[in-house]
Amino acid sequence: MLAAFLARTGMALMLFVELIRKKRDGRELSRQEIEWIVSAYTRSEVPDYQVSAFLMASLLRGLSREETAALTTAMLRSGSVLDFSEIPARKVDKHSTGGVGDKTSLMISPIVAAGGVSVPMVSGRGLGHTGGTLDKLESIPGFNVHLDLTEFRRILGKIGCAMIGQTEELAPADKKLYSLRDVTGTVESPSLICASIMSKKLAEGIDGLVLDVKTGSGAFMKDPADSEFLARLMVETGESMGKQMVALITDMDQPLGRYIGNALEVVECVEILHGNFKGSEDLVELTIELCGWMFLLGGRTATKDEGRELALSLIRDGQALERLRQLVSEQGGEVSAIDDLAMLPQAAYREDVLATSGGFITSMECERMGVAGVLLGGGRFTKEESVDPAVGIVLHKKVGDAVTKGEALCTVYYNSPERFAEALPVIAGAYAVGCEKPVARPLVQKVIQGKSV
Amino acid sequence: MLAAFLARTGMALMLFVELIRKKRDGRELSRQEIEWIVSAYTRSEVPDYQVSAFLMASLLRGLSREETAALTTAMLRSGSVLDFSEIPARKVDKHSTGGVGDKTSLMISPIVAAGGVSVPMVSGRGLGHTGGTLDKLESIPGFNVHLDLTEFRRILGKIGCAMIGQTEELAPADKKLYSLRDVTGTVESPSLICASIMSKKLAEGIDGLVLDVKTGSGAFMKDPADSEFLARLMVETGESMGKQMVALITDMDQPLGRYIGNALEVVECVEILHGNFKGSEDLVELTIELCGWMFLLGGRTATKDEGRELALSLIRDGQALERLRQLVSEQGGEVSAIDDLAMLPQAAYREDVLATSGGFITSMECERMGVAGVLLGGGRFTKEESVDPAVGIVLHKKVGDAVTKGEALCTVYYNSPERFAEALPVIAGAYAVGCEKPVARPLVQKVIQGKSV
Repeated sequence: MLAAFLARTGMALMLFVELIRKKRDGRELSRQEIEWIVSAYTRSEVPDYQVSAFLMASLLRGLSREETAALTTAMLRSGSVLDFSEIPARKVDKHSTGGVGDKTSLMISPIVAAGGVSVPMVSGRGLGHTGGTLDKLESIPGFNVHLDLTEFRRILGKIGCAMIGQTEELAPADKKLYSLRDVTGTVESPSLICASIMSKKLAEGIDGLVLDVKTGSGAFMKDPADSEFLARLMVETGESMGKQMVALITDMDQPLGRYIGNALEVVECVEILHGNFKGSEDLVELTIELCGWMFLLGGRTATKDEGRELALSLIRDGQALERLRQLVSEQGGEVSAIDDLAMLPQAAYREDVLATSGGFITSMECERMGVAGVLLGGGRFTKEESVDPAVGIVLHKKVGDAVTKGEALCTVYYNSPERFAEALPVIAGAYAVGCEKPVARPLVQKVIQGKSV
Repeated sequence: MLAAFLARTGMALMLFVELIRKKRDGRELSRQEIEWIVSAYTRSEVPDYQVSAFLMASLLRGLSREETAALTTAMLRSGSVLDFSEIPARKVDKHSTGGVGDKTSLMISPIVAAGGVSVPMVSGRGLGHTGGTLDKLESIPGFNVHLDLTEFRRILGKIGCAMIGQTEELAPADKKLYSLRDVTGTVESPSLICASIMSKKLAEGIDGLVLDVKTGSGAFMKDPADSEFLARLMVETGESMGKQMVALITDMDQPLGRYIGNALEVVECVEILHGNFKGSEDLVELTIELCGWMFLLGGRTATKDEGRELALSLIRDGQALERLRQLVSEQGGEVSAIDDLAMLPQAAYREDVLATSGGFITSMECERMGVAGVLLGGGRFTKEESVDPAVGIVLHKKVGDAVTKGEALCTVYYNSPERFAEALPVIAGAYAVGCEKPVARPLVQKVIQGKSV
């Protein structure tokens, strides 16, 4: 009775209170009610403080599958949905839920594009302990991630890949909602994460999507059951919108690869595309696996394993590296920095962190390593901070490696001795050394395929 | 680790996120953490959108007794605490959790003051379906509820009672928090309600407090168990701060007394103080009962029943009415409006609502009657709206009364035919008529006494 009166009289503030109370009390919102909330917030007709209360109620009470799908659709429709139907190749993207040292996107885009499947990739920045693709790309001098959609379309049509940041046109509701969730403790809801990721990715006008859902101490979801729940929710939501979907649950219990830090991660990627896989075996394996699935979803190969073979051959024959050069060139970056990695930003100082006892590395607190990277200046705790592209950590030892007392566990690259002093104990405390070699965790823990794949 | 870093670097925004997450995950906040939140919000150092997320997490996860006490103390200390030690009489106040037609404060203040116990009463305005003492007082021409604390003290010292609205000085944290809770669906938390009420009331510098916790269809708490939980929480919180505490759980399953509406409620009170109790028996009974407890807590009588007798005698001999006249005069109101009730604001129209069938009134949806009063213009859905003092509803039939078809259930007083058209179906739908006389609900369902009473 009251809600109907408020809707009719246009009392948005009070109508929203009724909807917040409904969700707070665990009742299900209708598609229309969810659309109203998203639309009103996108147009700034309701205040942040009501939305944050609604988000917290949604997180703690949960959203049903129908509510999640309605939220995703409403957020998707808050802006433009790209249409690349003039590009004959199928469009497939990859999305990772974020981790430490996860730089697969920088290799996947050129590899998959070189293989004939288009990759229209819209990425994010690092926040908290996790890194972001845009920050990594910007460590390449001149690289411009702020392309308008016309330029994005042109480059994608020309070389099959392009990498930009979120624009005002694509899912603007997500941009507003994510900024708010970030500062109100409402990030960790499977439904809100699903709607955020899927609304952005579906706005890219893709045919298929490969999801890399992280689990472990460096992931947002530390429990595999939570990761799997999220993965299934996203696969089902994408399928309900007619997309080919696969989700991989992958290990993020230690950093991926050897390098953590923006320019350092570009170095590692270029070395891998040169065929130098040494020390980066986990990173290479995950990259190849993700490419395999993307080639399958893109209709380029008949099986995922054939897709893997294709990806490896594109690295071996140099086509992937050449495509990265083209990408850097098209987006205004200095290609010479890819050919001469010394031209990338360099830290003024470096210092080894030594093992204080011998044995095996039994575990690494992965989130701590990410936080250490932020403390060095390589990431940000709040969106407003700028990042130092040069700083970071190069790991010499990872879980399962043998180590002797006094041997270097890792090397820290830094520009500020004060920041180094802050980060050092965090890094040193992240390593655990014991007598027994630990059982290795599988890199890909589970694959969840959509029914149409 | 992160929280310590953020606290040290003064990153309030991020530190607050950590505290929101802590409460969201059901962990207990320390007294220091709660003090930090209240203090930062009072000084506007943290934004509304973080506080509303925290409030929703607190509502859904609950606050422990220790957290509730810490919140109450922090809110109390956000402003001044009055000290009336120069007034020899004990200071006792009454607080009701709000209902429909609940106008006991207008009689209790003069009765108890006339009996020699001081009543420093800080009241609120009507919001949603419930009325507010300040709106009722302001229907008396000239009555000023915005006294400064010096004037409040002077009048209290002179006549033993004074009635004002919340000031900037008293519990400013509550004023900010309540405004935010009101528009974010975070009102209905026992701990937040307790902290809000108790911080304001304890700021009045009282020795004792009688709580009237409503239960039933017109109360915020519709379930007696919830009302009792809140009552016990407030009694314990007040006792832990050295106050004499009593809480009554009272029925709000139908409006209290016969009149709903600001000026109409003043009329009913004056009539009762003239000794005319007819049709207002429930209201008189509750008023006398509350006064009885206040005289006991104020040390004026040895028992509650002696206190009741005293209250009745103060009505009978006209002292209570005379004290009301003094109160109106001291606070700038026109005393002639008390002596000639026709001088109070009058509605332009009145119309009877007739019974469509005969039998007994089996129930009244009390909240609907309150909403109808707001629809007529007598209340407000949002704090910004003004109220029409003249409109309202006079009940001729209440639960248990016999009624014949075509007989008037109530009379609606209104100024706008449009608003009347809106309110009429709400009022008519609130009455249920059946064949059997219902069993009467007890007016006072339970008494919860502090250990020191």
